Amino acid sequence: MDKKLVSREEDYSKWYNELVVKAGLAENSAVRGCMIIKPYGYAIWEKMQSQLDKMFKKTGHENAYFPLFVPKSLFEAEEKNAEGFAKECAIVTHYRLQNDPDNKGKLRVDPKAKLEEELIIRPTSEAIIWNTYKNWIQSYRDLPILINQWANVVRWEMRTRLFLRTAEFLWQEGHTAHETKNEALEETVMINNLYADFAEKYMSMPVIKGVKSKNETFAGAEKTYCIEALMQDGKALQAGTSHFLGQNFAKAFDVKFADRDGQLNYVWATSWGVSSRLMGALIMTHSDDRGLVLPPKLAPHQVIFVPIYKNEEQLNSITQVVEDLRNQFNERGISSKFDNRDTKRPGEKFAQHEIQGVPVRITIGPKDLEKKSIEIFRRDTLEKQFIKIEESLDFVSKLLDEIQKNLFDKAKNFRDNNITEVENFEDFKTALENKGGFISAHWDGTDETENKIKDLTKATIRCIPDENNIPGKCVFSGNPSSQRVLFAKAY
Amino acid sequence: MDKKLVSREEDYSKWYNELVVKAGLAENSAVRGCMIIKPYGYAIWEKMQSQLDKMFKKTGHENAYFPLFVPKSLFEAEEKNAEGFAKECAIVTHYRLQNDPDNKGKLRVDPKAKLEEELIIRPTSEAIIWNTYKNWIQSYRDLPILINQWANVVRWEMRTRLFLRTAEFLWQEGHTAHETKNEALEETVMINNLYADFAEKYMSMPVIKGVKSKNETFAGAEKTYCIEALMQDGKALQAGTSHFLGQNFAKAFDVKFADRDGQLNYVWATSWGVSSRLMGALIMTHSDDRGLVLPPKLAPHQVIFVPIYKNEEQLNSITQVVEDLRNQFNERGISSKFDNRDTKRPGEKFAQHEIQGVPVRITIGPKDLEKKSIEIFRRDTLEKQFIKIEESLDFVSKLLDEIQKNLFDKAKNFRDNNITEVENFEDFKTALENKGGFISAHWDGTDETENKIKDLTKATIRCIPDENNIPGKCVFSGNPSSQRVLFAKAY
Repeated sequence: MDKKLVSREEDYSKWYNELVVKAGLAENSAVRGCMIIKPYGYAIWEKMQSQLDKMFKKTGHENAYFPLFVPKSLFEAEEKNAEGFAKECAIVTHYRLQNDPDNKGKLRVDPKAKLEEELIIRPTSEAIIWNTYKNWIQSYRDLPILINQWANVVRWEMRTRLFLRTAEFLWQEGHTAHETKNEALEETVMINNLYADFAEKYMSMPVIKGVKSKNETFAGAEKTYCIEALMQDGKALQAGTSHFLGQNFAKAFDVKFADRDGQLNYVWATSWGVSSRLMGALIMTHSDDRGLVLPPKLAPHQVIFVPIYKNEEQLNSITQVVEDLRNQFNERGISSKFDNRDTKRPGEKFAQHEIQGVPVRITIGPKDLEKKSIEIFRRDTLEKQFIKIEESLDFVSKLLDEIQKNLFDKAKNFRDNNITEVENFEDFKTALENKGGFISAHWDGTDETENKIKDLTKATIRCIPDENNIPGKCVFSGNPSSQRVLFAKAY
Repeated sequence: MDKKLVSREEDYSKWYNELVVKAGLAENSAVRGCMIIKPYGYAIWEKMQSQLDKMFKKTGHENAYFPLFVPKSLFEAEEKNAEGFAKECAIVTHYRLQNDPDNKGKLRVDPKAKLEEELIIRPTSEAIIWNTYKNWIQSYRDLPILINQWANVVRWEMRTRLFLRTAEFLWQEGHTAHETKNEALEETVMINNLYADFAEKYMSMPVIKGVKSKNETFAGAEKTYCIEALMQDGKALQAGTSHFLGQNFAKAFDVKFADRDGQLNYVWATSWGVSSRLMGALIMTHSDDRGLVLPPKLAPHQVIFVPIYKNEEQLNSITQVVEDLRNQFNERGISSKFDNRDTKRPGEKFAQHEIQGVPVRITIGPKDLEKKSIEIFRRDTLEKQFIKIEESLDFVSKLLDEIQKNLFDKAKNFRDNNITEVENFEDFKTALENKGGFISAHWDGTDETENKIKDLTKATIRCIPDENNIPGKCVFSGNPSSQRVLFAKAY
């Protein structure tokens, strides 16, 4: 297989698809729209999971597991939510196969094994979970419920792309129940901040926090908070959402509690999630024409050792040094791998680790050993440097922090340079076409204007940012606007 | 809710069901046969997962993720495997809902959105995975492939019980590909040993390792290794299986590789799994009429602190001591929780922690503080003891090891006392009816005898144990037998 990627400039979309496959992250499967997450890709996802899981637990959440299936009658209970997902549902109608009498050795659906009620494969779990919470909540003493679930979900999307939009994807979904509106709102905002922290500190991906317009609000929610990131091609990507559900699901499933005054009230709810889509965001934020670039905090191994040797004896000396260094690294919390495969030449190994985005490569040959030094290559800037072996632990330790920071700074710089403030619709269109990125513009707050802009430009309102509350005039209608919002074409 | 359980003697099955629900481990859902794993139950499952995952990685396996769906044409490719699961498959036939014109506000399956090919929800993933491996394997250099997947699977079982048999369950499934028959066989055995280690060292559950009879071999496998445990009611439980698949799946999916001599050969395969069923095994192995008993290595928290106080001042003094102890415990790797809820009385707390099987409870009141001592209660033997605060860290540390060991010894003792060697079929039936447990008997190796014994007694061959290879005469037919096998009624 040719290891070289098409360049981003030549064909950004092709570059992404090739990178995902050639770096061994994921590939398409025999099932339309469903992907296979390969070991290297899954190892990155595990790093994300493990960090997010820690953050959820630290903020008082517990994990649990709810069924994959939602009976149709529960699915349709919250009408807006049902409407939002009805058109992209995988539906189980039968529970048995039988031998096909017309095709020896083949099977067919047993027509007698039809379910009385169809089961929807969860596109999201509010319905099944709120039907359960109903039995768990009687009084304010049963609140709050702070539960998260790691699960697979299915949304029958027509156009799919590895990680970014797949029929089945992996995610976490938090579902919390509260006594008061305020408490639920605080939870919603706290989680959105948690997502932003994770994106910025672990993924090195700067995000803008804000609220969705009514059009883009989650089906069944009162208010959707989100974090929005900018990809290198100037398109935005929604990286996480946190929904204030009000009392909508409590009403749909009749979940009331006796409050501190003994009055029966509907419970307040939130739900929030990030998905394997973050993998796509991570890839597109940092990678270059040579392949994946990974922030050290999410790299399956942060350092790869490659030996250069002509004979067994040389390999043995190098191995000794590498094993010693790996032990030192390990104690300092630096993960590493020794690529001593004898089936690949060093050049092939370099190419593979480069396309797989290993943050630091250390090369050791016999000459290096003589000089008691090693060659250190950093993937983000492609710089090489020789370092004394005795200094390498401190050097690499600092270097990993530096790479983590450099990736964030670079991405933030790019993002900040790609927010264009415009005052009229002509400039809006010009900026969107010529530059892309976020267009910061005044909007009159109506669905109508939002839809017209979308029809004319394909740009949607990505978020109403937390800051920037200066009033003005709508870029499209000229009507009053309370603040600028961010438009962009989006994934 | 009444916290007291029916006793095991009175109604073992009811005891189990009540315990699972009252200890907050799991409950039935609105979906037939599907369970909700509640936070406390899920925390135990997470402990199991995390330990197994470490063991898999240490033996060279990597995690990956394959689709939930298997297209029917792939599902039926390996005929025996397909036949084994065809009768219990959930089948997706449609991908869209629409408004029901006859029922305002309701949805119905959109008849136009019928899939061209039905999708089976994976009951196990050999088919989809071997269809993928086909593209990954060209030469011996691509082997071995050592992959594990943590996933949900669906088997449409008619009679379900929480954890033990549910339509959807959580599991891990390993799928490996090898160059030689021997290497695949070694992997199969190595994993079965790994499962046994996990069961004995972490779950404190003694198991017997062996091979399944042909009747009980996994559909599509050449040989199934297994670990079998004995529950307190004398019924056996299959706790894990490791399958040598031979070249069956390689042939079904045409997966060949160029070997070291350049010859094309079919790849050798294994698959292996343990599931959330282990939760049922764990519960039934150790628990008593008061509720769950947990081995410390799998307890969500190993120590619970309960304060006894009359006023804020007393609570403050106790809290100080508890926080100090918790820090010390934490440094020693002992997990603990402080139950300082003011909504519950100490008695209620005791009852809850007892039914939830927290290994060690530490009670501290004002009088204890005066004496600089604490009361330590161990869940397994129900013994209480007063210990000086300054000695408590070492004491608890040792106590947890002791509990872990005691649970294993007790369970092993019970298991060993419930293996009955019999020489004729009358004794077989008597032992099975009066005592239960494993019946160690000679068997002539035929399906016919095995089936007859099953029809007459409901006992199946649980395994052909690794040891005990002395020949004899079949307990049923009188024909020659190469070794004793273990029969039992089973979950």
